[in-house]
Amino acid sequence: MTAPDRGFREEEFASRTARAQERMAEAGLVGLLLTTEPEVRYFSGFHTLFWQSPTRPWFLFVPATGKPIAIVPGIGADLMRRTWIDDIRTWDAPVPEDDGVSLLTDLLTPYAQRGETIGLMKGHETHLRMPLADYERLLAGLGALQIADATGLVRSLRMVKSEAEIEKIAHICAIGSRTFARVPHFANAGQPLENLFRAFRREGLAQGADDVPYLVGGADTGGYRDVISPPSRRPLATGDILMLDSGANWDGYFCDFDRNYAIGSADDASRWAYDILWRATEAGIAAARPGATCRDLFLAMQGVIAEKDDQGGDVGRFGHGLGMQLTEWPSHAAWDTTEITENMVLTLEPSLGYGDGRIMVHEEDIVVRAGGARLLTERAAPELPII
Amino acid sequence: MTAPDRGFREEEFASRTARAQERMAEAGLVGLLLTTEPEVRYFSGFHTLFWQSPTRPWFLFVPATGKPIAIVPGIGADLMRRTWIDDIRTWDAPVPEDDGVSLLTDLLTPYAQRGETIGLMKGHETHLRMPLADYERLLAGLGALQIADATGLVRSLRMVKSEAEIEKIAHICAIGSRTFARVPHFANAGQPLENLFRAFRREGLAQGADDVPYLVGGADTGGYRDVISPPSRRPLATGDILMLDSGANWDGYFCDFDRNYAIGSADDASRWAYDILWRATEAGIAAARPGATCRDLFLAMQGVIAEKDDQGGDVGRFGHGLGMQLTEWPSHAAWDTTEITENMVLTLEPSLGYGDGRIMVHEEDIVVRAGGARLLTERAAPELPII
Repeated sequence: MTAPDRGFREEEFASRTARAQERMAEAGLVGLLLTTEPEVRYFSGFHTLFWQSPTRPWFLFVPATGKPIAIVPGIGADLMRRTWIDDIRTWDAPVPEDDGVSLLTDLLTPYAQRGETIGLMKGHETHLRMPLADYERLLAGLGALQIADATGLVRSLRMVKSEAEIEKIAHICAIGSRTFARVPHFANAGQPLENLFRAFRREGLAQGADDVPYLVGGADTGGYRDVISPPSRRPLATGDILMLDSGANWDGYFCDFDRNYAIGSADDASRWAYDILWRATEAGIAAARPGATCRDLFLAMQGVIAEKDDQGGDVGRFGHGLGMQLTEWPSHAAWDTTEITENMVLTLEPSLGYGDGRIMVHEEDIVVRAGGARLLTERAAPELPII
Repeated sequence: MTAPDRGFREEEFASRTARAQERMAEAGLVGLLLTTEPEVRYFSGFHTLFWQSPTRPWFLFVPATGKPIAIVPGIGADLMRRTWIDDIRTWDAPVPEDDGVSLLTDLLTPYAQRGETIGLMKGHETHLRMPLADYERLLAGLGALQIADATGLVRSLRMVKSEAEIEKIAHICAIGSRTFARVPHFANAGQPLENLFRAFRREGLAQGADDVPYLVGGADTGGYRDVISPPSRRPLATGDILMLDSGANWDGYFCDFDRNYAIGSADDASRWAYDILWRATEAGIAAARPGATCRDLFLAMQGVIAEKDDQGGDVGRFGHGLGMQLTEWPSHAAWDTTEITENMVLTLEPSLGYGDGRIMVHEEDIVVRAGGARLLTERAAPELPII
């Protein structure tokens, strides 16, 4: 299987920026200040794992017209120069007493003097990636500058993927599917769960993933009780229900889906739970059409799950957006009335509780096209597979 | 090699909490509100990769006396119940209009009514991991509550490691050393760098790492120019200088070090740069004794590097703390006068520029004991290795 090209053509960044600027104009914003990895990458193409170090802040400012402006630590200047960005301002970070604050102040002072409004992401599923004290100090030096929440603006752009983005996500979903297809070959009774996790990650890399940063799961007799744990040393045992949920990535884009397996034999309750979730996912696939809402998707899946669920819904939702992040807006939940549109990439992730604290989750990744959902993952088997 | 036990004994969390509470009392803080993964884990033992999803905030509150209180999404309740925490308050996150804000308000209102002060991490190398708009809304509902920066307090605890923490870091450093020792067996001319990265990650997992989340590097004729890039498809070529810098982890603790190699043959300038950095690291190792400062370490390394450096110092520092995060306080820089004390775990990471934009970096991990530094990594070869 041939991998797509890495990176994007400059036109893609120009188009993203132009669309942001249109919406900024509509919203009365003269600029957009971005501090988080996906947003900086979305508008600049700046792609590095160095964000894993919490030491240095990184800033990108999208003005009302023209290319974005980067304000970044000197250690990133070389890499930023290889993007489409021209205006790159650096300092020798880390410098705790002035980690970019002076450079930001210089940039923003003209806007402040005119009492204008810039956008900042302050809403759901966002955070400010700079020391809070630095932010407070920055604001204090920019008295009349107005700050508006730009979460909705950025969200509206990022939720709908370009063909180049969809190609990358489809690629990593195929890698993930091939990895899961190999699980019966390297999982077995007696194997400590941490060893299985390691084998899964190695297989994902062998299949072509750049990394498998997210891997959680559970295994327990007749069903697992937790879906966010790191692996234990408990050996897999006959009668276990095993779930692996993985976010592998390629060129900065994620897949996010899981698979369930029974070890040796499957109990009736688990087989029943699996069947319900498999059918709930079918209902979600059928409902994921342009014009439907996330609430519609939730209700379509919930309608099947209502046959049997005692968990009280504490997983919070039945899937979400997918792309540069493992989880993105929107959420398939009763409270999310976001309209599904063409070229959204979504996960369908129904779950249920089925007694004694046992829960089961099931997840697929789809892209929404004009005619409806297209699976990006190889569909899970209709019956609980036995290893 | 036998791995240490996973997790910590309850006494460790009790001790961390008691020491925090002593310092809180000295600082006049009646509580400490924590929102970030390392801090929540440090005081609770709550360990999950689920933080990779930006959707849900997680909170831990350390009161003046007694165990911490967890305010977490329902999806994490089961895992939190397996820690030493007793008071666990949950909601069915995500709920954008109230993702924990009401629960935090209930908890903090008594303090607000008395006009008391709580600590929050607002300083260098920290961020607030919750939507900024939610934070502003929380504060607005807690009029008289005072917020003080608790970065120094938490930093003073986390910088000095327990024996159990040192054991975990030593374990992952040994895994990293064995992985680097294998590089000459799987790196070769003609191999695209992205394939080498994948092979390195697979080897790290085979050697026992839970994951190799951080892997950056460069390779170019006669020297690399960038140290934070993701891998390209450019094939390794004879005459390249290759650098791999890796943060592998085990049970939530990191190693962070790099190695340089010449492919086929090494040019004189690169061999000279390597020699300077190797000796600078020796100087750092000798200087890393209790009572010295980070500035002393920096100057010891800088004294050697001054023989030849044209980079202008834009890497910003020559090493840092290491533990639950890839990079932690303190920084080996002229501006950091933090006193080195026993049981700090540090990296020594001198770097230099040597013409035409080429840079070289070199890194080892140490633990500071009463008698001086003890290497946790297997010391790099004194001469630039040729593959």
